[in-house]
Amino acid sequence: MNIENYMQTLGRRAKEAARILSQTETNHKNRALIAIANALQDKQADLIDENKKDLIAGKANGLDDAALDRLTLTPKGIRAMIDGLIQVASLSDPVGEITDLSYRPSGIQVGQMRVPLGVIGIIYESRPNVTIDAAALCLKSGNACILRGGSEAIHSNQAIAACIAEGLREAEFPAAAVQIVETTDRAAVGELITMKEFVDVIVPRGGKSLIERISKEATIPVIKHLDGICHVYIDDKADINKAIRIAVNAKTHRYGVCNAMETLLVAESIAPTVLPLLAEQYRAKEVELRGCAKTCSLLIDCIRATETDWQTEYLAPILSIKIVSGIDEAINHIHQYSSQHTEAIVTEDYTLARRFLREVDSSSVMVNASTRFADGFEYGLGAEIGISTDKLHARGPVGLKGLTSLKYIVLGDGHIRQ
Amino acid sequence: MNIENYMQTLGRRAKEAARILSQTETNHKNRALIAIANALQDKQADLIDENKKDLIAGKANGLDDAALDRLTLTPKGIRAMIDGLIQVASLSDPVGEITDLSYRPSGIQVGQMRVPLGVIGIIYESRPNVTIDAAALCLKSGNACILRGGSEAIHSNQAIAACIAEGLREAEFPAAAVQIVETTDRAAVGELITMKEFVDVIVPRGGKSLIERISKEATIPVIKHLDGICHVYIDDKADINKAIRIAVNAKTHRYGVCNAMETLLVAESIAPTVLPLLAEQYRAKEVELRGCAKTCSLLIDCIRATETDWQTEYLAPILSIKIVSGIDEAINHIHQYSSQHTEAIVTEDYTLARRFLREVDSSSVMVNASTRFADGFEYGLGAEIGISTDKLHARGPVGLKGLTSLKYIVLGDGHIRQ
Repeated sequence: MNIENYMQTLGRRAKEAARILSQTETNHKNRALIAIANALQDKQADLIDENKKDLIAGKANGLDDAALDRLTLTPKGIRAMIDGLIQVASLSDPVGEITDLSYRPSGIQVGQMRVPLGVIGIIYESRPNVTIDAAALCLKSGNACILRGGSEAIHSNQAIAACIAEGLREAEFPAAAVQIVETTDRAAVGELITMKEFVDVIVPRGGKSLIERISKEATIPVIKHLDGICHVYIDDKADINKAIRIAVNAKTHRYGVCNAMETLLVAESIAPTVLPLLAEQYRAKEVELRGCAKTCSLLIDCIRATETDWQTEYLAPILSIKIVSGIDEAINHIHQYSSQHTEAIVTEDYTLARRFLREVDSSSVMVNASTRFADGFEYGLGAEIGISTDKLHARGPVGLKGLTSLKYIVLGDGHIRQ
Repeated sequence: MNIENYMQTLGRRAKEAARILSQTETNHKNRALIAIANALQDKQADLIDENKKDLIAGKANGLDDAALDRLTLTPKGIRAMIDGLIQVASLSDPVGEITDLSYRPSGIQVGQMRVPLGVIGIIYESRPNVTIDAAALCLKSGNACILRGGSEAIHSNQAIAACIAEGLREAEFPAAAVQIVETTDRAAVGELITMKEFVDVIVPRGGKSLIERISKEATIPVIKHLDGICHVYIDDKADINKAIRIAVNAKTHRYGVCNAMETLLVAESIAPTVLPLLAEQYRAKEVELRGCAKTCSLLIDCIRATETDWQTEYLAPILSIKIVSGIDEAINHIHQYSSQHTEAIVTEDYTLARRFLREVDSSSVMVNASTRFADGFEYGLGAEIGISTDKLHARGPVGLKGLTSLKYIVLGDGHIRQ
C-alpha cells in the first residue's frame, strides 16, 4: 500500500463528506448517532472477540497491566460507549446558531453564525472507546473525521469501525463522514498531520510523548494539552475544613488524571495547623509526601522535594508540598512551574480570591473548589474531546463548540458602503 | 549584532512585560494610549523629517508609486494615527470580562474570563501607520508586542518607536510592552516566527507573498488572510436596483482592497436584464470586464475570461463575470474558487437567502449588502488588526477580542468531586 496515496484519498473523501455534513439537519445527525449505538449493541459479541485478539497480541508484545486495562473492552465499557452516543445525540446542536445579531449605524445587521471546522484528524493511543467518543463529537458538530488509533487496538478499532459504517449507512450518511485509518504504519500519522489541503485541525489524545511528537511535526493546527501540573494554594485565610476536603479530593479522588493536584502550596502561618491534619489523611491513603525544608520540619514522614518534583506530573499517589509566604509567592511558583492546566486557591478573603482568578494564567482557575472539576461534563459541555492548554481557539475542556468556528453574517436591504 | 540573541532578548522582555500588562487596569492602559498620541503630536515635524529619509532611499531603490504612497507620512496621516489611538482608548476593555457564569448541578459556578494572549509578533510591510495601529490594539488588549516593519520604513518606524517609548514612560508602563525590531536583517523575522517560548501568535500584514512565506515558515500560530477573491451572486429573484447598487459598490468603491468583489455571478434568467445596465456603469468607471461565453454574447465590450481569471484577486478595475444556472452552480463556483473571505447574494427569496447564509463557507456571508462592509469598523469591532480567513481562533475581521482568549473560572464553597 502506498501510504501517501491512501491517506490523500481518505483526506479527499473526508473533505467532500464535510461539505455535506455541514448542511445536515440535527435530527439526521442524531439518527446516525443512535444507529451507531444500535450497531454496537447488536455486535457486542463480535467486539469482544476482536478485542481478545488485541489483548492476546498485547500480552505477547509485553504491554503492561495499565495498557492492557485501557485496551480491554468489557460489556460495561461497550455500554458506556452506547450511553455516550445517546448523550451526544441529546446535546443541542451548535451548528447554525446565530449570536449577537445587531444593527450597525450603516443600517446593516451583523452577527455571527457557528459553523463546523471541516475535517478533524484524531490520533490516539490504544483506548478503543476514544474511537466512539471522537466520532460522536465530530459527527454532532458537523465535522468529518479521520481517526487513527493505536496499533495495539487495530482489531478492536476495525470492529468498531464496522459498527460506525453500519450506523452511517443506516442513516444514509456519507461513509467518509467517519473514516478509520486501516494501516498501523506510522507513516500514516506523518501524512495525516501535514495534509493541509484536506485536514483543518488535529486533536491528539494520549500521553505527553505522543502529543509532543505530533505538535512538533504537524503543519496543521493542533488542539492539545501536554500535561497537568495542577496546584492548590491554601491561603492563611482559608477555612480549614474546606482546605482539607479540597486538598484531599484534588489529590486522591483519582491519581492518573490530568486534573489531579500535583503540588500543594500552603501559606506559612496556616501550615502548622493544616499540614499535620492533611498528612494524616494522605498517610491513610498511602500518598507519598515530598516537601520543602519547612514542610519536612512539620511532617516527620515527608521526604525532601527536589527541583524536579516541582516540574513533575506524578499521575500517582505522590504529592509535593511547598510552604510559601503568601499569595505572591504562590502565584510566582505557579507562574514558574504550572503547565497552565488548572489551579485553585482556598481562601475566605474576597480580595485574594479576585486576585488569584485574575492573575493566574491557566485554562481553569478556581476558588474553593477541587481541581478535579476541570472537565467537560462538570462544566456542562456535555462531552469533551480533550482539554486544551493552548490559548488560541479553545482553552480548557473542548466540547462541541470547540470543534466549530464563527463566521460573520451580514443582512442588508441593498446597503452599500459610503 | 547576533540576531538570534537580540531577538531572544526582545522575546524574554516581552514575556515579562506581558505578565504586567495582563494585570493593568483599563484607565492605566488608556493613559498610555493617550500619552503616545500626545508624543506623536509633539514630534510631528521629526516624524516627517525621518519619513523623508525613507522616501529618498525608497526612490533611489526604485520603489513604485503605490509603495511610495503607502510609505509616505503626511500631517493628515499622523492625525489619523492620533485619532486611531484615541479611538482605541475609548473602546471597552475586553480583558477580565466574565461570561456565562452559571451554576452546575454539582453546586460549582462555572464561567469564562477573557484574558490576553500574551506576546504578539506583528510583521508588516512598509506602512508606518501599521506600527501605531498594531501597538494600540495590543496594548489595549493587554498583550505585549514585537513589531517588525518593512525595511524601507526603518527611519519612520524608529521615529514612531521613540514616540511610543515616550508615551509608555510617561504612563509608567514597562518599555518592553511595545518593542520595535531595530534591525532590517531578514533573519530577525525567521527568529520571531519560531520563538515558541516567547511569542504566542504572529499577525502578518501585507501582500500575499509575505503572508505565504511567514505561514509556511512559522512554528507559532499565525492569524492571517491570504487573499480576497470575493463573489457577488445576483439571483433571478433579485431586486434589480439593489443588485446594481451592490455590484457597482462592491467592485468600484475601492479597487485595491481585499473585500472588493472580483467575480460577479449572475443567474441565467436575470442576466439579459441586469448585465447590460451594469456594464454601462462599469464602462463609465473604466472597469475591464472578462466574462464567460454567455456573458460575452450579452456584452460586446467583454473579453473572454480564462480559468486563471476565476482564481485571481485583481485588486484593480477588472471584473470577471459568470452566468450560472442558479444558486447551486453559484455556490459550487464559490466553493471551488473563493478564498473564503467574503461572498454576497442579492435576492428577495427567503429560502435562497437562508441557504446561501448557511451553505457558503466564508468568513463573511452577506445578503443584499456590499462585500465592502467586511471590515472591523463596519462590524462594530472598533478597530481591526487584520482579517482572518482561517477558521481556528478568529475568523473574519479581528479586533480586540481576537487578541484575547477565554479561561474557565470556577467558584465554589469547598466543593469536591464526588
